[in-house]
Amino acid sequence: KLTQLLTEQHPADIAEFLQELDSEKQGIVFSLLDREKAALVLNELDASTISSLLDTLGAERIAEILDVMPTDDAADLLGEMSDLLKQRLLGLMELEDAQDVQELMEYKKDTAGGIMTTEYVAIREDITAERAIQVLRETAPDAETVYYVYVVNTKNQLVGVISLRELIVADPNTLIADIMHRNVIRVNVNDDQEEVARVVARYDFLAVPVVDDEGSLVGIVTVDDIIDVIHDEATEDIFRLSGTSELPADDGDIYHSVLVNVRSRLPWLIITMLGGLLAGRILKGIESQLSTVVALAFFIPILTGMGGNIGTQSSSLTVRGLATGHVDEGAFFQTIIRQAAAGLVMGVLIGTIVGLVAAWWQGKVMFGVVVGLALVGNMLTAATMGTLVPLIFRKLGVDPAVASAPFISTAIDITGLLIYSTLASLLLSYLV
Amino acid sequence: KLTQLLTEQHPADIAEFLQELDSEKQGIVFSLLDREKAALVLNELDASTISSLLDTLGAERIAEILDVMPTDDAADLLGEMSDLLKQRLLGLMELEDAQDVQELMEYKKDTAGGIMTTEYVAIREDITAERAIQVLRETAPDAETVYYVYVVNTKNQLVGVISLRELIVADPNTLIADIMHRNVIRVNVNDDQEEVARVVARYDFLAVPVVDDEGSLVGIVTVDDIIDVIHDEATEDIFRLSGTSELPADDGDIYHSVLVNVRSRLPWLIITMLGGLLAGRILKGIESQLSTVVALAFFIPILTGMGGNIGTQSSSLTVRGLATGHVDEGAFFQTIIRQAAAGLVMGVLIGTIVGLVAAWWQGKVMFGVVVGLALVGNMLTAATMGTLVPLIFRKLGVDPAVASAPFISTAIDITGLLIYSTLASLLLSYLV
Ligand SMILES: [Mg+2]
Ligand SMILES: [Mg+2]
Ligand SMILES: [Mg+2]
Ligand SMILES: [Mg+2]
Ligand SMILES: [Mg+2]
Ligand SMILES: [Mg+2]
Ligand SMILES: [Mg+2]
Ligand SMILES: [Mg+2]
Ligand SMILES: [Mg+2]
Ligand SMILES: [Mg+2]
Ligand SMILES: [Mg+2]
Ligand SMILES: [Mg+2]
Ligand SMILES: [Mg+2]
Repeated sequence: KLTQLLTEQHPADIAEFLQELDSEKQGIVFSLLDREKAALVLNELDASTISSLLDTLGAERIAEILDVMPTDDAADLLGEMSDLLKQRLLGLMELEDAQDVQELMEYKKDTAGGIMTTEYVAIREDITAERAIQVLRETAPDAETVYYVYVVNTKNQLVGVISLRELIVADPNTLIADIMHRNVIRVNVNDDQEEVARVVARYDFLAVPVVDDEGSLVGIVTVDDIIDVIHDEATEDIFRLSGTSELPADDGDIYHSVLVNVRSRLPWLIITMLGGLLAGRILKGIESQLSTVVALAFFIPILTGMGGNIGTQSSSLTVRGLATGHVDEGAFFQTIIRQAAAGLVMGVLIGTIVGLVAAWWQGKVMFGVVVGLALVGNMLTAATMGTLVPLIFRKLGVDPAVASAPFISTAIDITGLLIYSTLASLLLSYLV
Repeated sequence: KLTQLLTEQHPADIAEFLQELDSEKQGIVFSLLDREKAALVLNELDASTISSLLDTLGAERIAEILDVMPTDDAADLLGEMSDLLKQRLLGLMELEDAQDVQELMEYKKDTAGGIMTTEYVAIREDITAERAIQVLRETAPDAETVYYVYVVNTKNQLVGVISLRELIVADPNTLIADIMHRNVIRVNVNDDQEEVARVVARYDFLAVPVVDDEGSLVGIVTVDDIIDVIHDEATEDIFRLSGTSELPADDGDIYHSVLVNVRSRLPWLIITMLGGLLAGRILKGIESQLSTVVALAFFIPILTGMGGNIGTQSSSLTVRGLATGHVDEGAFFQTIIRQAAAGLVMGVLIGTIVGLVAAWWQGKVMFGVVVGLALVGNMLTAATMGTLVPLIFRKLGVDPAVASAPFISTAIDITGLLIYSTLASLLLSYLV
C-alpha cells in the first residue's frame, strides 16, 4: 500500500516526507521507489539525507539511480560531493552517462553550460520525416523534454528546429531540411545564466538549445531551471544591495548560523565603520564651529538620513533597472541627468522645509540657509552617486548590485558632511 | 519575401521591429501576418502601437485577432483599454471567447484567476481512452498547452490528470477514471500569484490547474506567465525595500519621468524627514551636554550609519527569507534571537574598536565607554528591529517588504540617538 501511495505522490513531496524519517526507514522507503522515481526524489533531497542513503543502500545502487537522472541534476549532485566519492560514483555509472556528467561539471556554475542538460532530442537534417520518427522512438525515452526536436548537420551544428506535431503530419518521404525552421534562437555555452533567463522569458520557451563556439549543439536549458535562476539571481541582488551574502540553508545549529550570518555581513559593516570614523574626523575639523553653534549638531542625523535614503532609492532603481532592461546602459547620461533632476527637486523641497524649521529653532535665518543648502547639496549628490556608481560598476564589468546601500550610504555620509562643514565654516560669522 | 521572413521570425522580434516603423508601415506589415501570428505579435506590442493599429486596421480586424489570442493575454490587453473601446471589441468578438475574457477580467490582477487562461484541455472521467483522443482532436487546437490533459467529473470538478502519452498507449476501451492519476496538485482561483509561483517552482510544472471553491476546473496557469510573476515580484520587493514604487515603462518624456520618479519616492523621504527632525529634537534635549563635550557630535554619523546598515541587512534577510521560505514564520522567536545574537556579536566587535578610537581621540576612557556602549545598544536594537518589523507586518497581513529601509533606518536613528543621549546625560560628569 505504501508503494501504491508513493507512485501517486510527487517527488518533491516524497522527498519532504523522507527527510522526516530516521535513516533506517529512509533506506526502506527509498528502496520501494522504481529507478525513475528514485532519481527524481534523490534530486530533491538535502545533502545529509543523500549521504545517509549512500551508507544504507551502497554506492552501486546510487550510481544506478544517477544513470537515469537528468545529467544536469546528476552533475549538480556530484559537484557537491567529495572528490573521492565523486570518482567512485562516476566509475560505477554507465560510461556514456558518466562522460556527459563529467563534461557538465567542467562548466562554470552560473553559465548556460552549468545549468544545461545533455538529454535533448536531435535529428540529422539529411534524413526523411519517417526515419526521424523512428530515431525519436529509439532515443526519446532518455530526453528530458520532447517539446522541441532540434536538427543538426553532419558536423553536429544546430541548423533547425521542428515540433513533434509538424514531424508527424509531414509527408514521410520529405527531408527534414525541407520542413524545419531555420531561424533557431540559441545561447552560447559560456553565456551567463541571466542572459539565458532573459532569452527564455522573452520568447516564452520551454527549453532553449545551447551551442559551443563552433555552433555545435551541446545541450538544452529547460524552463524549470530558468525559474530557479531568476529566483536565485533576485535573492542575490537583494542581499548584495543590502550588503550581505546569501544565507545558506538553515541547518538548525544556532551557533553556526549566527557565525555564518556575522561573517557575511561584517565586511560591509567594517566599511561603514571606517566611513563613520572618517565622518567623525571631518566633524572634529569643525570642532570650534560646533562648539560655537551647537545647533549644527542637531541636523547631522537628518542630513545623513536623507542622503542615505535617496542614495539607496537611486541605486536600487538603477541596479534593478539594469537587471530588467528598463535602464538602458547606452543612455548613460540621460539616466544620470534624470536621477539628478529628481534629486534636485526633492532636495529643494525637503531642504526648504527643514531649513525653515532650523531657522525657527535657532531664531536665525542664516542658520536655516546653511542647513537647507547642505540638504539640497547632499540630496543632489546622493541621487547622482546612487545612479552613477552602479552604472560605472556595470561598465567595469563588476556586478552593479555590489554598489550597495552600505557602500553608497557611507560615501554619501562623507560628502554630505563635507558640504555641511564647508558651508558652516564659510558662513560661521552669520550664525552666531 | 517580407511575408516569408515574417513567418520565420519570433513574435517578440516582429513586435520589436514593428515598433520602430511609422504607423502607416506598421499597418501594412501587420496585415501580412496570419491571424495566429498576429495574435502573438499583438500581445507583445506596447499600448501606443496597439492604438495606432486599431486606427489603421479597424476594431473588427483587431477583434478577430483577439479571438485567437490566449484568453489571459486578451484579458490583460483589454483590461488596459478604455471602457468604451473594451465594450466595442468584446461586442465584435465571438460570443464564447468574449465571455471567457470578460470573466477573466473580473479576477484580481495578482491572483491565480488574474494570470490563468481558459484554454486548457479537459476530458470527462466516464469516457473511454478512444473517445478521449477523439475529443482532444476536436478541442486541442484551441488549447495553449497540451502537456497535461485534465480529467473532470460530471460537475466539472477536477478529479484527475493524464499525459497525452499515457492516453495514446492505453487500451482504447479503458475508462479514463481507471488510468488517470487522482492526486492532482492544484491552486485556488483566489490564491495569490506568489503562491501559484511557489507551486510551479516546487513541482517543476509547465502548467498548474486552477479550481474554484467548489473544486471545479476554471483555468490553468502556464509557466511562461509564472516567470513573469517571479520577475515582477522580485522587482516589487527590491523597490519596496528601498522605499520607492515600481518605475513605469520609460516613455522618453524627461519631465514626466522625473515627476513620476519624485512622486514614487517622496512619501518615504517625508517619513525620513519627520524622523530626522525628531532626531534633531532629541539632540536639542542634550544641548548642554553637547556644548560641554563637543566630541559627542563627532560620533553621531557612525552611530546612525552602523544602525542603518545593520537594520537594512536584517530586514532584507528577513523579507527575502520570508519570500523564499528560508525564514519560517512559525519559528518567530528563533529567527529574532538568531538575528539579535548576530547584532550583539557585531555590536560588541565594532563598539570595542570605535570606543577605543573615541577614548584615544578624546583622551578619556569614559568617553570611549559611552560611545562603545551606545554602538552596542544601537546595533543590537537595529538587528532586532530589522527582523521583528517585517515578521510583525507579515503576521498582520501587510507586505513585509514595506517594512523598508527608509522606515526602519529612521526608526533606528531615533532609538540609537535616544540610547546615546541617555548614556551621555547619565555619565556626563565622567566625560568632562
Ligand atoms: Mg541515462
Ligand atoms: Mg550571476
Ligand atoms: Mg549545474
Ligand atoms: Mg515571457
Ligand atoms: Mg533540469
Ligand atoms: Mg546577478
Ligand atoms: Mg478562440
Ligand atoms: Mg503580490
Ligand atoms: Mg490577467
Ligand atoms: Mg523547481
Ligand atoms: Mg499566458
Ligand atoms: Mg505570455
Ligand atoms: Mg510581493
